Amino acid sequence: MDKNWIQDRLKQILGPERVLAGELNHRMYSYDSSFLARLNNYIPDAVAFPASTGQVAEVMKFAWANNIPVTPRGAGTGETCGCVAVRGGIVLDLSPWDKIEEVDTANMQALVRPGVIHASLNEHLESHGLFFPPDPGSSRMCTLGGMVANNSSGLRAVKYGTTEHYVLGLEVVLPDGEVIITGGAACRAIKNVSGLNLTQLFTGSEGVLGVITLIRLRLWPRPGARGMIMAQFRRLADATPTVLEVYRGGILPSGVEILDDSAIRAVNLYYPEAALPEEAEAILLFEVDGNPASVQWEGEQIAAIAGRRAIRVEWATEKGRMAGLWQGRSLVAAAAARLQPGSTRIFAGEDICVPLSRVAEALEQIKALGQRHGIAVVNFGHIGDGNIHTAPVIDPRDRDQVARAARLVDEIHRLAIRLGGSTTGEHGVGAVRSCYAREEHGAALDTMLKVKRALDPKNIMNPGKIFPGSEGEQV
Amino acid sequence: MDKNWIQDRLKQILGPERVLAGELNHRMYSYDSSFLARLNNYIPDAVAFPASTGQVAEVMKFAWANNIPVTPRGAGTGETCGCVAVRGGIVLDLSPWDKIEEVDTANMQALVRPGVIHASLNEHLESHGLFFPPDPGSSRMCTLGGMVANNSSGLRAVKYGTTEHYVLGLEVVLPDGEVIITGGAACRAIKNVSGLNLTQLFTGSEGVLGVITLIRLRLWPRPGARGMIMAQFRRLADATPTVLEVYRGGILPSGVEILDDSAIRAVNLYYPEAALPEEAEAILLFEVDGNPASVQWEGEQIAAIAGRRAIRVEWATEKGRMAGLWQGRSLVAAAAARLQPGSTRIFAGEDICVPLSRVAEALEQIKALGQRHGIAVVNFGHIGDGNIHTAPVIDPRDRDQVARAARLVDEIHRLAIRLGGSTTGEHGVGAVRSCYAREEHGAALDTMLKVKRALDPKNIMNPGKIFPGSEGEQV
Repeated sequence: MDKNWIQDRLKQILGPERVLAGELNHRMYSYDSSFLARLNNYIPDAVAFPASTGQVAEVMKFAWANNIPVTPRGAGTGETCGCVAVRGGIVLDLSPWDKIEEVDTANMQALVRPGVIHASLNEHLESHGLFFPPDPGSSRMCTLGGMVANNSSGLRAVKYGTTEHYVLGLEVVLPDGEVIITGGAACRAIKNVSGLNLTQLFTGSEGVLGVITLIRLRLWPRPGARGMIMAQFRRLADATPTVLEVYRGGILPSGVEILDDSAIRAVNLYYPEAALPEEAEAILLFEVDGNPASVQWEGEQIAAIAGRRAIRVEWATEKGRMAGLWQGRSLVAAAAARLQPGSTRIFAGEDICVPLSRVAEALEQIKALGQRHGIAVVNFGHIGDGNIHTAPVIDPRDRDQVARAARLVDEIHRLAIRLGGSTTGEHGVGAVRSCYAREEHGAALDTMLKVKRALDPKNIMNPGKIFPGSEGEQV
Repeated sequence: MDKNWIQDRLKQILGPERVLAGELNHRMYSYDSSFLARLNNYIPDAVAFPASTGQVAEVMKFAWANNIPVTPRGAGTGETCGCVAVRGGIVLDLSPWDKIEEVDTANMQALVRPGVIHASLNEHLESHGLFFPPDPGSSRMCTLGGMVANNSSGLRAVKYGTTEHYVLGLEVVLPDGEVIITGGAACRAIKNVSGLNLTQLFTGSEGVLGVITLIRLRLWPRPGARGMIMAQFRRLADATPTVLEVYRGGILPSGVEILDDSAIRAVNLYYPEAALPEEAEAILLFEVDGNPASVQWEGEQIAAIAGRRAIRVEWATEKGRMAGLWQGRSLVAAAAARLQPGSTRIFAGEDICVPLSRVAEALEQIKALGQRHGIAVVNFGHIGDGNIHTAPVIDPRDRDQVARAARLVDEIHRLAIRLGGSTTGEHGVGAVRSCYAREEHGAALDTMLKVKRALDPKNIMNPGKIFPGSEGEQV
């Protein structure tokens, strides 16, 4: 299909100011944070900026009538090509549509448009004494539409769960332009078990079923206090038992993070003042929140439990000191590339999730895989729920390194499945992990395909995502 | 279809001991707790007791080949005819299949068969220091299969959410006998965002999409301490602001229950020693749990907040004293019938859920509706999430009272929708609320129907549920 024709028609539908002009600008939409996007050239035929449900519906009706693929996009911070138009067609950039429509304090809910930035919502909620607990690393950039589409989580999932636990209802434009509201057409209740759970079906569906245009979120009372506990371990094998003992002590911290020795080394190279102990194989960081009495109690308990195995434990409730303890964790993503001069961290195989009982095993095997393929890997992440960030560090101009990294991340994904885990704990499938879908889901993938075909029989919604190539094309 | 033929074929498939004999016994399966079931005569053609996934699959293949409706059933404690074969066919009684397959303490998960009783699981988990937080009133009777199928909740949903928040994966036998595993075919991770969220699609689907044969539940560390706060209010209007102030104080109690004056009167009639204050229009009961320091802090705070409006506040952490404070709430369901001699409580319109901000308004209007129709109604329930139990009390042999009660509960359901709520906060749609589905969901109901048709094109799975009559039949 001629892209000029698509762009002209979109200008008629939305007005010229809502359609991106300029060939070079379209190239900006061929990226997200994934390495796959860097290796390819997924330039869309058109980019539109609808800013009302009606406008989205009009675009969808046009796309439906003409069998044009449509890919919704937020801030583009994803790591799986989820918001990249791998089959061409129209990208709907929803990031400018960033209105907080309402904060309903009495019912502890917020209604937001898909482009609202995560951190902006929580800043806005501060004066209401409320917050939206999920806390992704990309908080200051990522949109809530993207978070819902990917069922994102981040640091606080141990205690607070993932985005899906807070989505009470959605307005969705379906592939044919029809608009539905899930969770009750006019509902403001906190609980509602009427009908099939479409809200959760669309949450995490990565744009393959429809376009999310309004999100009704449940909010929580903002906890009054916070505490941070840091524990350093000589042996990596001591980290997991410590986490499990904390849980067994009746404590669910709001976060439990790990840096392994590769991450410790990277942080010290990047910021020597951090002076993390290089004799440690692992650093654990616990965050606890709640009322002040609870934070004090849990902080002491965790410090005592960690102290049984750690070479050093420190805990704090004072803001500056907490930031100090957290410093290693906050620097590690930026620091990863320092492990190898002239290289960059790539996002590929970066968020596997394994059972808690097998985190140490996973980290050891990832290290061995990295050595076998001659690729440096920095490991850190959400050990509290088994969600590990593996950051391969390569020179992306070196074809041999690229090929070796591809083999490495394939093995990391397969390792995750073999250990009883998943290829993706929080970033989604996108185009990057779809080849593992059959292995991960077996016959359940056919049920997913049935749902996809029922809702999007023309396969125009974000094609090439979630479902493996050959099967995905049959949708 | 001839029921003797169906029964004979089932005996061949499962063995005669797994097929119910005796005409009179089949009558036992025409009931759940709903008033609708009492008014009708939904006797199934056959009742089978499969006790393996393979047996369920064989039954489904037989039913699929012969277009026979299949209705899965747990303990039959539901209130919506959900487990009653309103279109005849086969009832699968899964309650004898009650094996706890595994408690995976390291990964804080349990794998259970559908017939496991809720209370049994939590008793079993006690020695592991873990628990499954949702806490329905029918805990000692209801099955986990039923809880998952209905996305049940109960007392602890305010803080802990509903059953869906704990379902990590399901084994499901589809209408054609195919077996799938959702949440990852071999997954034991706590987080997994790979693929469409079939787990939550089947959770709360009330048996209309398939038969749940295995449940993988996430467990939580058992909190070490508990506290109970009781507050009596002269004016009903003071109850909701008190609850909202507690939330605004950064506290999410594990439960917030209310008894209104009708419930207070009923309890006093049933058990005068309870001596609840009849000058009070409302009693609030808060439960808090967590570590001991936190419980102390939250108990004091809630008592202080409630004290601003209440005529009496008391709080306790000692077991016997807590039971005393909770007594009114624990007796009210049994006591309701006492409001009118010779009458019984019926389950009809009994679990509407309204926005928190409109609970008082809902209770006032329900009282007025009861008076207008000349039907006594006892009100209590989970005010913390707006989920109100309205218990009409009638003489079921009196046709006029039955007709008036039917009009009353219809108006209660419509009131819930009008107030921005739902006809069902925790018990499900079943056959009882399906007539409101179009009004509650609008165009989203068509999307639900598309999913239903895609997964059950012959409409053999629990027909007559969730979808309104005329539309449901078109499935």
